[in-house]
Amino acid sequence: MGVTSIFIANRGEIAVRVIRAARELGLRTVQAVSAADGDMLAARLADATALVGPAHATKSYLNKEAVVRAALEAGCDAVHPGYGFLSENAEFAEMVEAAGLVFIGPKPETIRQMGDKARARQEAQAAGVPTVPGTEGVVADLDTARVEAARIGYPVMIKAAAGGGGRGIRVARDEAELATLFPQASGEARAAFGDGGLYLERFIGRARHIEVQVLGDGERAVHLFERECSLQRRRQKVWEEAPAACLTNEQRAELCASAVRLAERVGYRGAGTLEYLFDDVTGEFFFIEMNTRIQVEHPVTEMVTGIDLVRAMIRIAMGEPLALRQEDIVLRGHAVEARICAEDPTADFRPSPGTVTGLTLPGGFGVRFDTLLYAGYTVPPFYDSLLGKLIAHDETRAAAIVRLDRALGELKVEGLPTTAPLHRALAADPAVLAGAVHTRWLEEWLAATPLVAPVSPVPATSA
Amino acid sequence: MGVTSIFIANRGEIAVRVIRAARELGLRTVQAVSAADGDMLAARLADATALVGPAHATKSYLNKEAVVRAALEAGCDAVHPGYGFLSENAEFAEMVEAAGLVFIGPKPETIRQMGDKARARQEAQAAGVPTVPGTEGVVADLDTARVEAARIGYPVMIKAAAGGGGRGIRVARDEAELATLFPQASGEARAAFGDGGLYLERFIGRARHIEVQVLGDGERAVHLFERECSLQRRRQKVWEEAPAACLTNEQRAELCASAVRLAERVGYRGAGTLEYLFDDVTGEFFFIEMNTRIQVEHPVTEMVTGIDLVRAMIRIAMGEPLALRQEDIVLRGHAVEARICAEDPTADFRPSPGTVTGLTLPGGFGVRFDTLLYAGYTVPPFYDSLLGKLIAHDETRAAAIVRLDRALGELKVEGLPTTAPLHRALAADPAVLAGAVHTRWLEEWLAATPLVAPVSPVPATSA
Repeated sequence: MGVTSIFIANRGEIAVRVIRAARELGLRTVQAVSAADGDMLAARLADATALVGPAHATKSYLNKEAVVRAALEAGCDAVHPGYGFLSENAEFAEMVEAAGLVFIGPKPETIRQMGDKARARQEAQAAGVPTVPGTEGVVADLDTARVEAARIGYPVMIKAAAGGGGRGIRVARDEAELATLFPQASGEARAAFGDGGLYLERFIGRARHIEVQVLGDGERAVHLFERECSLQRRRQKVWEEAPAACLTNEQRAELCASAVRLAERVGYRGAGTLEYLFDDVTGEFFFIEMNTRIQVEHPVTEMVTGIDLVRAMIRIAMGEPLALRQEDIVLRGHAVEARICAEDPTADFRPSPGTVTGLTLPGGFGVRFDTLLYAGYTVPPFYDSLLGKLIAHDETRAAAIVRLDRALGELKVEGLPTTAPLHRALAADPAVLAGAVHTRWLEEWLAATPLVAPVSPVPATSA
Repeated sequence: MGVTSIFIANRGEIAVRVIRAARELGLRTVQAVSAADGDMLAARLADATALVGPAHATKSYLNKEAVVRAALEAGCDAVHPGYGFLSENAEFAEMVEAAGLVFIGPKPETIRQMGDKARARQEAQAAGVPTVPGTEGVVADLDTARVEAARIGYPVMIKAAAGGGGRGIRVARDEAELATLFPQASGEARAAFGDGGLYLERFIGRARHIEVQVLGDGERAVHLFERECSLQRRRQKVWEEAPAACLTNEQRAELCASAVRLAERVGYRGAGTLEYLFDDVTGEFFFIEMNTRIQVEHPVTEMVTGIDLVRAMIRIAMGEPLALRQEDIVLRGHAVEARICAEDPTADFRPSPGTVTGLTLPGGFGVRFDTLLYAGYTVPPFYDSLLGKLIAHDETRAAAIVRLDRALGELKVEGLPTTAPLHRALAADPAVLAGAVHTRWLEEWLAATPLVAPVSPVPATSA
């Protein structure tokens, strides 16, 4: 395809991640920046920057026309969308391709297909991938919903067909709740996504979140095993691991094979993730949705497989066939990742943008910190609060958690509170150490275990 | 052995390395500090510090009595000697053990045995390990030396039996030079080491430096494959790799098996390295000496094997039998390490101690920087110039070098010149990329390729 120069249509730590991969491939990088981001780390590391709009995300990183125009003006021949923002926007991917640029991701039609949860579910079933008992496609009205919910069994989840990231999801415990929540959810979905379509699924209360990483070249796909991301707060992942310690090797093989079947069925191109709910009592797993982009937590998979996912997705976008054979991908050890955010865990996770007055980064064997931080940087208040991902890799899960805690102890971000103290508390918790968690465990734990501002030498939380 | 607390009898980056391993094992750390080192990174990271003397190394880190006394007073039950300083001093190891402390290293008798090059050579021959053609033990006088040199074949090296680190070595190209150099070398050896004993070896002009990492528990030993460290300046290693790309698998197997034979013969305990010269034209390798301690360049081995060497040596010292089976130790990819020193490569490597006024650390997948640096730290002028070791790991040697160069580009040490520009130049050199180097290559290259102070944005060399 003759790609020589990549436009990074994102910001923060993932922009840094993409720049590193592009540079190692010998590619020039041009970093999109909003007016608030001229001094971010990615802007410093890239070969050049290009203004895409004011601080407001909708007017900059989410402005499809501005991003495509900036990529063309910068002389780039490919666009990497990162995660979030326009990364799963099929229309954006089409605009990129229509402009003669390479979109580093799946075909636009695949984004559209898998972005529609009802269609994704149908594809999964056609590929023999188990799905959560639920409706076949969108439910026309409340009467139909009543009949379907009775068939599926309460409690049921009401989900927006066009939603994502956990938004627009409601749980109805009985028919009366369904009657109240269904019209509400439809109206909100129409307002938020321009599409009021809803579907129903059985609600699995004590499930684990397990996801399978795949790479495909449009023809063939491989899996890179799975991650567990059950520690979530408000449906946002807080701590991720690879592999999922709760799986037997037989379960792992079955789960990962199902992901490859679905990826190959849809002719998947690039890096993608199939998300599942897993009930570790029954051993059942259910496909939920596919994320057609690189994910925040991809580094844990890189650490245990040794495979550079961002490099791989760029190479595929450049037209190279998938070089990996399934049998060459082997698990080595265990990796855990803590999302370090500019939020104060001792004050209900209040966002804490501000200036980094001092910084000590953790290091050593098996430790990786993918971060946007540098000493003197001012974290702007306009975007996601993620400051970086601290990853620890070791021979066993127990050793990886000890290593993560050791590295958390070395991290010092002066000038603003971070969520590092939450992660130190988690790394010492018996349930976390035993791996005995589920997707609602963290919120219950936070309700029962209020974090207090530390006195000394725990990572800075002074404001 | 009941070890709960380790005294770190060293400084700089290796002290940080040991603290990290000890902490991950749940052990308390007490850091030895000279009067010049109270604010070094290791002192900040350790649980406590203990003053061992004034800035002068001979009065602090080399003062055996002061170190043992400080370890006892600090309530420690083990001592880690790092590398350099007292790490290969058998008398110190004996004093540590006599004080009831655990010495984290080999038995004192092994240090003594392998520290005497003539004895080490005899042991190697007895273990069937090839040695460089040379004299059996110390040469009594010049007349004997003449006879032996004629047998061995010129050019011959004249080496001090008590020497180390390349000190006291001379090369005689013929009998006339031998007659001049032999008495000189004997006198200098007596002055430097208190022992004028000399031996002769064939001089191999275009050799590669290859070394094998071993771990032993006093009974059984395993190897962790080899490193190549041919890029040297004034016999100091500058750039190291694992594995050695010049070896065939057959040569690798033979070399590593020979190292295990010798380690098991001497009942080696802990982490050790057997150094060899390798002639890649003939494929011959010759054992030179054994380093009975952890080495500066150990991280490249950790990256390609996934095994934590410092943790392993502490566990062995605590009395655990070696848990590793040889068949479980597998190579994965390639790692390169650049020694970043406080020296100005554009001014004949003049030492450049001073204050770090700004610091940007490199990061990302496959990058590790074991460093003593933090922003605001003042590098004292009294010690070794090593600031840190930048290690890059990737699937192939070529990719690892690209990654190293990418990481070097991210490293910014403001306030003092470092050797990073040398490493960037090496990473771009065709001979380095081809692996076509030998132990004298770098000095020849430096003579032919004067480095000039960079204009911009290469890592800071402004003074």
